[in-house]
Amino acid sequence: MFRFELLKQDSNSSARLGRITTGHGVIDSPVFMPVGTQATVKTLTPEELYEIGVQIVLSNTYHLYLRPGEELVAKAGGLHRFMNWKRNILTDSGGFQVFSLAKLRRISDEGVYFNSHIDGSVHFLSPEKVMQIEQDLGADIAMCFDECAPYPCSYEEAQQAVVRTSLWARRCRENHHRTDQTLFAIVQGNIFPDLRQRSAEELFKLDFPAYAIGGLSVGEPKEDMYRILELMHDLLPVDKPRYLMGVGTPEDLLEGVKRGVDMFDCVLPTRLARHGTAYTAEGKITVRNASYADDFSPIDNSCDCYVCRNYSRAYLRHLIKAEEILAHRLLSYHNVYFLVNLMENIRSAINLGMFSTFYHDFLNTYRF
Amino acid sequence: MFRFELLKQDSNSSARLGRITTGHGVIDSPVFMPVGTQATVKTLTPEELYEIGVQIVLSNTYHLYLRPGEELVAKAGGLHRFMNWKRNILTDSGGFQVFSLAKLRRISDEGVYFNSHIDGSVHFLSPEKVMQIEQDLGADIAMCFDECAPYPCSYEEAQQAVVRTSLWARRCRENHHRTDQTLFAIVQGNIFPDLRQRSAEELFKLDFPAYAIGGLSVGEPKEDMYRILELMHDLLPVDKPRYLMGVGTPEDLLEGVKRGVDMFDCVLPTRLARHGTAYTAEGKITVRNASYADDFSPIDNSCDCYVCRNYSRAYLRHLIKAEEILAHRLLSYHNVYFLVNLMENIRSAINLGMFSTFYHDFLNTYRF
Repeated sequence: MFRFELLKQDSNSSARLGRITTGHGVIDSPVFMPVGTQATVKTLTPEELYEIGVQIVLSNTYHLYLRPGEELVAKAGGLHRFMNWKRNILTDSGGFQVFSLAKLRRISDEGVYFNSHIDGSVHFLSPEKVMQIEQDLGADIAMCFDECAPYPCSYEEAQQAVVRTSLWARRCRENHHRTDQTLFAIVQGNIFPDLRQRSAEELFKLDFPAYAIGGLSVGEPKEDMYRILELMHDLLPVDKPRYLMGVGTPEDLLEGVKRGVDMFDCVLPTRLARHGTAYTAEGKITVRNASYADDFSPIDNSCDCYVCRNYSRAYLRHLIKAEEILAHRLLSYHNVYFLVNLMENIRSAINLGMFSTFYHDFLNTYRF
Repeated sequence: MFRFELLKQDSNSSARLGRITTGHGVIDSPVFMPVGTQATVKTLTPEELYEIGVQIVLSNTYHLYLRPGEELVAKAGGLHRFMNWKRNILTDSGGFQVFSLAKLRRISDEGVYFNSHIDGSVHFLSPEKVMQIEQDLGADIAMCFDECAPYPCSYEEAQQAVVRTSLWARRCRENHHRTDQTLFAIVQGNIFPDLRQRSAEELFKLDFPAYAIGGLSVGEPKEDMYRILELMHDLLPVDKPRYLMGVGTPEDLLEGVKRGVDMFDCVLPTRLARHGTAYTAEGKITVRNASYADDFSPIDNSCDCYVCRNYSRAYLRHLIKAEEILAHRLLSYHNVYFLVNLMENIRSAINLGMFSTFYHDFLNTYRF
């Protein structure tokens, strides 16, 4: 069911052009995956995401487990049918959310007791339970349950998370049986190179079809993230996809691709939209600002998305000020399009052997 | 620019089949006009409204005057371009909103001083000012500035509103010059037959191309509304459209059509959607109710709209509980479709000489 083809490697960087195939079709990589936390990419329909060119969305195991519950989703015929999405889905493992959103009660090798962020009710997640949930949800790609250490943390804490992540990866592996679903492992180790190496090597022994890089983009300096990505590029097998979790901004996508990353996900495009902010080739703009009140140009003159072809900054600002939901929709559409289109341009550039030129041109124009 | 053709009259009722033509195309009547208060039909794009079959939307002069201001809309090239709507638009006059939403300061024959419901700022609207605003907005159909008496009110109050509405209609007429915009008059008179007659006759002298029935659906018993509609049917010229303002529910649309009304508008479909309520052929259902948690059928089995073809009650309820904007979108889409489709079925029935059968069948099934 799952296949990764490495189509091209850039000669001046570690950028890679690839193609991932699952039961729900092809994913061209490097790819940005919009996030549909609660079985919906906020404000958008599947048809709009198809139109944008989205080939895969991410959904959150932690959230769907709490509400509406994986049992209901399974009864609906799985996540694809429940949310009317006909392309690929990846579910994360809930590990990151348990350690960031929920109130932790007790963690042991067995699993994690925590309080729901919705109603405070007590829940228990273990590698075995998470595998049951993810298989009930039925995404094309499932993630192993991992322990994500915070930033900053001590070497000992990071080491503990690596040990537990390896232990849990083995149990996830043993409890994962769906043949129409692929299980990815997650490398931890915080910003400590030897722990990253240890985590990767322990997971290699289990021979997963792909490896994610977890525990980055959690507050560490950019240089640390880039340094770890370079190390991971050297360590990770060349013939398997690498997925950098929770990233990111346009500049981080470029920096990640440059360092050999194939897959990314982030809530930023829809979250920024809710705050009235939009991406442009020259950087982010806050559309709600008074300076756009009578600006009848599109969000981004160089963008050919539905929103930029039909609506002015002045109209969008009016919708934001009037608290109209259409504002969230249109800004979300544009922002997701911006990142998906950026990845498309990146893939073209790698294909043409022009990635370095594209990288420099983009970052010269984009103010952040 | 403006033409009304009466295509057919029902033999068993006062129902009429018609066709209105303006600069932005044809409107088949009887017609339901969704309301885009702030230059957007809440949560929906123009393309979705085209897909639903909407031929005309209403927008609110009072709201657009306050925000973003008619000057900005004119600078954008008019309301059609501002909101990216390529079919017909009708703007109300703001009269109803000034008397219901705003805090009234002083009313005289000259006009109305009031406080904005947004920031309390003081504003003045007169027939002359409203004509300037509506012409700046540039809808296909504009409404005269009228005085809408509340329900209940004394005969004297209702009479005063009729006198002022006639006075203002003349001044609106004199100050309306756009040849690509048609000006409708509004009949007032509350639930008093002689005042309704007086209002209509005074307006007839000014020979407007169409007459609206204002001051109904403001709290009076249904029987009073129906009685006044029957009177208006007898009074109003047969060869001009009649527009019942602020109506309504599916049952009121049927009762209105039966009594000779050609045009309707109401915020209900999108407002109900925001409260998690949807129309079905069997009556309204509250999709957020727990009883729909594992109901995998569509909102309405007999509906073939985008939402009913693709989403279950269980999924919609999940979106509502999770406070996802997509819930508002999908329920708004369905509810607007329901009313637009109802009008389409009504038109077919009139055309086939089957209106009475349709009327009884619908009301036998629809619980309200």
